[in-house]
Amino acid sequence: MKLLEERIREDGVILPGDVIKVDSFLNHLIDVELISHCGDEWYKCFGNEGVTKILTIESSGIGIACITATKFGVPVLYAKKSRSATLRSGVYSTKVVSYTHGQSYDVLVSKRFLNKDDRVLIIDDFLANGSALRALITLAEKAGATVVGVGIAVEKVFQGGGDDIRMRGYRIESLAKIASVDTKEGIRFVE
Amino acid sequence: MKLLEERIREDGVILPGDVIKVDSFLNHLIDVELISHCGDEWYKCFGNEGVTKILTIESSGIGIACITATKFGVPVLYAKKSRSATLRSGVYSTKVVSYTHGQSYDVLVSKRFLNKDDRVLIIDDFLANGSALRALITLAEKAGATVVGVGIAVEKVFQGGGDDIRMRGYRIESLAKIASVDTKEGIRFVE
Repeated sequence: MKLLEERIREDGVILPGDVIKVDSFLNHLIDVELISHCGDEWYKCFGNEGVTKILTIESSGIGIACITATKFGVPVLYAKKSRSATLRSGVYSTKVVSYTHGQSYDVLVSKRFLNKDDRVLIIDDFLANGSALRALITLAEKAGATVVGVGIAVEKVFQGGGDDIRMRGYRIESLAKIASVDTKEGIRFVE
Repeated sequence: MKLLEERIREDGVILPGDVIKVDSFLNHLIDVELISHCGDEWYKCFGNEGVTKILTIESSGIGIACITATKFGVPVLYAKKSRSATLRSGVYSTKVVSYTHGQSYDVLVSKRFLNKDDRVLIIDDFLANGSALRALITLAEKAGATVVGVGIAVEKVFQGGGDDIRMRGYRIESLAKIASVDTKEGIRFVE
């Protein structure tokens, strides 16, 4: 999506370690008009897939998922982070290893809110090495739900998570695909 | 708002300690259509106040704030929770003591995203003893911004936080005001 690429080029800040800071429009201050355009794009991709629920993960996925959900007319379910979910009943849980923070944590959803009749669209702001996305897919699979696809705002293609998950057969629609990041040469998008 | 009160009566679960669980439509699974009606109500209250930004706190405020922001055509800024913000520069920070979890934590917003020209509408899902709301007001005041008002989905009036903050001169519009909660007698709303 040109609009998102332009915004990343304009306002994204490149930090050491291939980190792109987009806190001025995506995950601290949120430009809801831009996100609404993202939602329209994902509706074009997945509007005919019979989506029953949008699944995301706290915190930075929630806003983007909610605005997108208004296009589809379905509820949002957000997976919650927890220090330990192993002892909690009534939830599906799995582990995420965070690339950015080098920590691992559990994520969980209540069994009451996800089941085998659900057709799930996963929405998240970032896709890098794919650990959060793999966890969301695992939660959906544990519930027996069908993952009809994945909508990502910013994919860091060079970190490989997206291709790995596409090879497992999942359809991922990323609106801005970053091929490389360099503090001198800036951001290069996939053509 | 009748619609929200009915939903709380139907789907809210009363737990010991005056806790009302609304995770089936407000803060785990999110009914975006219901939230959109909430946003319309707050727009009726504050649409003429020249709001420039909606301020909320992660995680459960984000979805409701984003959908509301689409009505106002302004961005959302969400305060981030942090174990310690005291050593971080470039942020306004303050402390919150959580009633539900008995823990204290810091919340912060970047100085780049809030300033004296901002007219802020604070949006959150719950208001009980008011600790989170007081923190958001403090952050706005530190930035020199004007708080034009507060929109709350569910206020637990009997816990006193709302009245305390109203007495300081802030306008709070709560869409469901709970007078009392009892595991036997159920939920009673303020007339």
